[in-house]
Formats: sequence, structure tokens, C-alpha cells
Amino acid sequence: MKSEKPKKTVSVDKSPEVIKTDYYTFAEPPDGIMLDLGKSFGPVTVVYETYGVLNDKKDNAILVLHALSGDAHAAGFREGDFRLGWWDNMIGPGKAFDTDKYFIICSNALGGCMGSTGPSSKNPDNGNRYGLDFPMITIKDMVTVQKKLIDHLGIKRLLSIAGGSMGGMQALQWVASYPDRILSAIPIATGLKHSPQQIAFNEVGRQAIMADPEWKGGNYYEKGQPARGLALARMIGHITYMSDESMENKFSRKLRNEDFNLSFNPDFEVEGYLHYQGDDFVKRFDANTYLYMTKAIDYFDLSGEESLIPLGERPDTKFLVISFKSDWLYPPYQSREIVKRLKSRGIDTTYCEIDSSYGHDAFLVEIKEQEHLVKHFLNKVYAGNNG
Amino acid sequence: MKSEKPKKTVSVDKSPEVIKTDYYTFAEPPDGIMLDLGKSFGPVTVVYETYGVLNDKKDNAILVLHALSGDAHAAGFREGDFRLGWWDNMIGPGKAFDTDKYFIICSNALGGCMGSTGPSSKNPDNGNRYGLDFPMITIKDMVTVQKKLIDHLGIKRLLSIAGGSMGGMQALQWVASYPDRILSAIPIATGLKHSPQQIAFNEVGRQAIMADPEWKGGNYYEKGQPARGLALARMIGHITYMSDESMENKFSRKLRNEDFNLSFNPDFEVEGYLHYQGDDFVKRFDANTYLYMTKAIDYFDLSGEESLIPLGERPDTKFLVISFKSDWLYPPYQSREIVKRLKSRGIDTTYCEIDSSYGHDAFLVEIKEQEHLVKHFLNKVYAGNNG
Repeated sequence: MKSEKPKKTVSVDKSPEVIKTDYYTFAEPPDGIMLDLGKSFGPVTVVYETYGVLNDKKDNAILVLHALSGDAHAAGFREGDFRLGWWDNMIGPGKAFDTDKYFIICSNALGGCMGSTGPSSKNPDNGNRYGLDFPMITIKDMVTVQKKLIDHLGIKRLLSIAGGSMGGMQALQWVASYPDRILSAIPIATGLKHSPQQIAFNEVGRQAIMADPEWKGGNYYEKGQPARGLALARMIGHITYMSDESMENKFSRKLRNEDFNLSFNPDFEVEGYLHYQGDDFVKRFDANTYLYMTKAIDYFDLSGEESLIPLGERPDTKFLVISFKSDWLYPPYQSREIVKRLKSRGIDTTYCEIDSSYGHDAFLVEIKEQEHLVKHFLNKVYAGNNG
Repeated sequence: MKSEKPKKTVSVDKSPEVIKTDYYTFAEPPDGIMLDLGKSFGPVTVVYETYGVLNDKKDNAILVLHALSGDAHAAGFREGDFRLGWWDNMIGPGKAFDTDKYFIICSNALGGCMGSTGPSSKNPDNGNRYGLDFPMITIKDMVTVQKKLIDHLGIKRLLSIAGGSMGGMQALQWVASYPDRILSAIPIATGLKHSPQQIAFNEVGRQAIMADPEWKGGNYYEKGQPARGLALARMIGHITYMSDESMENKFSRKLRNEDFNLSFNPDFEVEGYLHYQGDDFVKRFDANTYLYMTKAIDYFDLSGEESLIPLGERPDTKFLVISFKSDWLYPPYQSREIVKRLKSRGIDTTYCEIDSSYGHDAFLVEIKEQEHLVKHFLNKVYAGNNG
């Protein structure tokens, strides 16, 4: 017998309300900010979004850090835009980063192309886009800019900093640069340094862009992106973001067309997927930013004995380190190296290797396990600070 | 006291004498050979080398099959050429493929660019290079051509067929196509089918070539190769041939220049290595052959229940299947799938997963273990046939 009882209405939308984008500009010349490589640079604009409410004590703020292709739009919808933030499944009321309790900040990294100053920004000296006149930057410079933003927001100490991949490197750099300004850190799917294999994958991506004649030495803004090169770089990247197993589960050897004709067109679904991802990327990401950011990542190295935490120091920062079993781009052994370093300094560290088949992408899609870990960890840190 | 005794002279050159290259041309039009995809094609020239002596019974012949970038020159030196064959450490007097006992044959695959008919060959119809007028070929077509060569040499049954990577696929295809013509098979670092991850890596290599404006739709023979695209394809390939561990051991984060300047030039040794390998490849390999061969590999699929060995049949072919622990391009689980299929049909199969850190390259460099395995296996097969 069919039940006549009306179905229970469940609200699945637990995202924050429509998000506003804020800008902060500082370091006007001739002051500028001092870059890691010794040059002064400015002005710098940083675009950021916030979710939740900063409490009166300003002790509930969490800075979330994006990966290579991310931006300041981490959660919810922006006005007039139907694209959900890149970590929306982790940020919102009741979610891992619970906006009912915490104030979440996400900014576009220095060198980016999503609102913060980067190679596609206009150089105020001459009105032209920077292109390759943009200075070489490092992960440390990205963190220097984020710290300026935190100062601007009047936050003395962040409850936590969290990010995956390049975001995880920034989290570690915060520990190295401003240990007194953070209570805890959550580096996810990352490592203390970029390995030669990781450098190699970035280098073939850069070569794909720079080999495209439309790149024109980085001076392409009048005519348009080096589309084929940038798409190819993204295709290479996407292979490394998935695992052998997740590709098999998603595509196997399925063909795009039943009546295929063996040819040099993409015959297999996996090829079609990569082409789609590559072409889509060209519409939203700047090729020069790809070059600058991958170089910054390649130069990242906090593996020296004194680099992450100077000998003799023991900051009270608490750590949650997360890796994913099938992530072969940032394999779990690299996260274990972080943990080993932290534990050797007597630092309160929780480590979890999540049994996922999604490869490096897991930090964006394995929500259930991460939510559980992050919620519990933040509760502990927040209670410890307010107990 | 310094010894006056003259040092013992040790001859380390156990390679065969200077090698001669032979050619065999067949399938003159309008006969041609019937290709896997239903087209007739000819004439076909196949270039090959032989090492050792074919005995009177013609029962000591072994066909060795090269990988994507290999050629017919598997051992020793050719007249006027100082380049050792690609498997010279495995082929020679007293070596794994012992030329004192066996007669070794190696031919350049159909579609190649090292003497056998391929896209860079002249089309006799019009005197131009084939380019993309060359027909699409499969691994099966390569084997069809090899079988014609074996017929031509008057060999009824090969003692063995052996090869790694694409060479291993050809070995498996021999089992499928001509089980009565082989006594044994040695597929190394290969699988029953190309996985989506393997297809994906081939596709980005092809895109690198075809995105190069110098490729000109495959019609570049007057002007020269699409050098940057082909070099990039090779760079991508080389990342997949090594392991994370072997890259760390070989390069770590060593810089090419102590007084480096953070830039978009290759700063790290690993980048320099990839650039060198890419540029070197352009001098000796044809871009269109890269396209045709990778497509043939991508279409390789003998995973169907009836594909390798039809149900109900039980050929007396003996197998030695070899994989390498750190090979993530053709991971050991793919070799175990071959073994599982063979054992399920009651076929005499030996399997060894060699504990190597060299990644996919291991089949070219892990000689000691392979020599031991191959020697013992061939002794057994040869004795079994002459006992």
C-alpha cells in the first residue's frame, strides 16, 4: 500500500548566503612589500571573501588557502554568479568549517588572476599588464600578503589556517613565518618540499604554455591567451590529480562514440574529459599566473632542519595533517615527513591518511572523513583557547 | 711496494661483432597486407638485425620486440656507428639472450621511423612522404609484419618472443595471433590492455606534437620536425618512465647552477635532464611515428575473455612474465592480470615482480635479475623441445 504521508522536506542548502567580495590595497610605492627574493614591490591588491561572523574577541577566524587553480571564492554563491565556491562542501553552517561558529576568510594568492595582483594586472607605472615584468614570487610572498590582510582585519591570532596542495604549503609557510599569529594549522595533501617528480610535472606544463607561439613571451594580453598551451598544461595537471583507480572507475576504456573511427581525434572518454577540462581552464585562468605559481611551488622547500621551526623553539601551534592513500602527486609519505618533523619537536600533531581512491583530488571531494576530522580538531583548539 | 706485474687484461666486450642490417620487402601492391582495420596496404619494408647463428634445425630463434622509441638495433655496434643496441646488456655471448646458443632477431616495427615502412616513408604512388596518408595501424599489424619476416627466414616455430612495454604487447599479440608459431613468450612490464591513465599520458604527448604549428597536419618533412612539440611529448614520457624514488636518487632538488636566478629557465637538474632527453629525441625520432605508435598502443586490448587465448584452447606456450615494483606506468597489478588469465587456462607460467626502484625504465637497466630469470627460462624451454 502506497503511503499517503507527505514526504518530509529536507533543506539541503546549508551554504552561506550570497557572498560579497572585498578588496584591500596596500604597499603603495615607493614602500611596497619586501619580496622573498629581495625586491620591493607594490601596490598590492588582495581580493577576499569572508563567511560567518567575526566575534568580538576576534578569536574565531580561520584562513583558508587555495590551491594552484583556486581563488578567493571558497564557499556559497557570489552575486550574479552561479558558481559554488571551491570548498563549499567544507564551509558553511554545520559543515567542517562551521560558519555558525567560525569566521572564515579566503583570499586570492599574490600572483593570481582572480582579483589579486598578478602578472595579468595593470602595472601602474605604464598602464600595461605586467606580463613577465611581474616579479618572481615565492610561497613566502603569498603568506606575507595574507598576513597584511589579517592585520588589516584586526585579527591578532588566527584560530587556524587550512589548505590542500599549494594551500597546504602556504599553511606550512605560516608556521615558519608567523608562528605567533596562529593557534593551529591543517596542511592537507602536501609536503615539506617539492620533489623532482613534482617539479618535472610543473615544468612540462610550463613548457606547454611557453612553446605556444601565442604566448609571445608573456605579452599576449592584447590578442588573447596561448589557449592550446594552457589547455595542454591543464590536461597534464588533471592526469596527476586523479589516480589510476579513479580514472579506471570513471572512464575505463569507454569510447566517446560507438561508431568510432581510429583516428588522432580523442576517441576515448578519458581523452574527451581532459580536453574539456583543458578548454574550460583557458576561459578562467591566466597562462602567466600558471607559470608564476608553479615556479613558486617548485621553489618551496621547508625541509631544512631549521626551516619549519627553528631548533630550540616549540610553538604551541596544534596540527592536523591529512593525506590520501591514492594521492600519487603528493603521496602520504610526504605528509608523514611533516608529521615526523613536528613530532620530533614535541608538537601536538594529529595525522590521518584517508583511504580514498580519488588521488590528489580527494582533498576537494572526500568530505565526510575530512569534515569529521576538521570539526573535532577545531572544537578542541577553540575549547583549549576558551577553556 | 709497487707491483711490477702487468695488469691482467680483461675483455669486457662481450657484445656480438659488428652487426649488419638487413631489409625485407613484401606485399607489393595490389596484394599488400590486410590491416587489422580492414584496409590493404603495401609495399612493406621491414628492417631487421640478427645476432648469433640460426642452427640447421632452425629451432633456436628468438624474436625480440622493441618499445615505443626503440628500433631494430638491439645489440652490438653497426658498421660506422658507435651507438650500442638498446638491449645490448641482455643480448650477446653468455648474456640473457645468449648468442652462443640462440639466434636473436630484432626488427623495427611497422609504422616506425628507423628503416621499416612508416609515415616518414615515401609513398610509391606519388613519391611524397606518407605523413597522415599512412593508414592507422594496430599492435596486431606490427605482429603480422613480424610473422612475414619469420616466414621469410624459414623459421617454423620461434623458441621465444620477448619484449618490454609496447614490445610486451606485441609478445602477447603473437600469443593471440600465432600460438602455433611460438614455444614461449616473455612479456615484460606490460599489460593486457591500455588503461585510461596510460591513454591519458599518450594523449597529452600527441597533443603536444599536434599543437606545434610546425607539425602542419603531419606534412612537415620539407621544413623539419615539430621540434618543440615532439621534445615536450618525450619529456612527458620520461617522467612516466622513472619512479618518484629514482628521480629523488638521481636529482633530488639539485640546481643546475649554484648562482641560479629564479626564472622560467630550467633551474633544477631534473628539468635540465628532461630538456636534454627531449631535444635528443627530436634528432632521431619522427613525430608522426610517435602519433601512430601511441595510438596503436592505446587501442591495444586483449583483456576480453576470448582475446588472448580462445576458450577451450590450451596452447603449450610457456610464459615468463616480469614486472617491476616501482613501475607506475605499467604497474605490477597489470602483469598479475596477465598471469591470472594464463593460469586460469592451465598454462605453464612463471611470474616475477622484481624489486627495483627504476620505474618503467627498469626493463632496460635491471639486467642481473632479468638475466637470471631469462637464462633459466630459455634453458628449460630449449631443453624441453630437444629432450
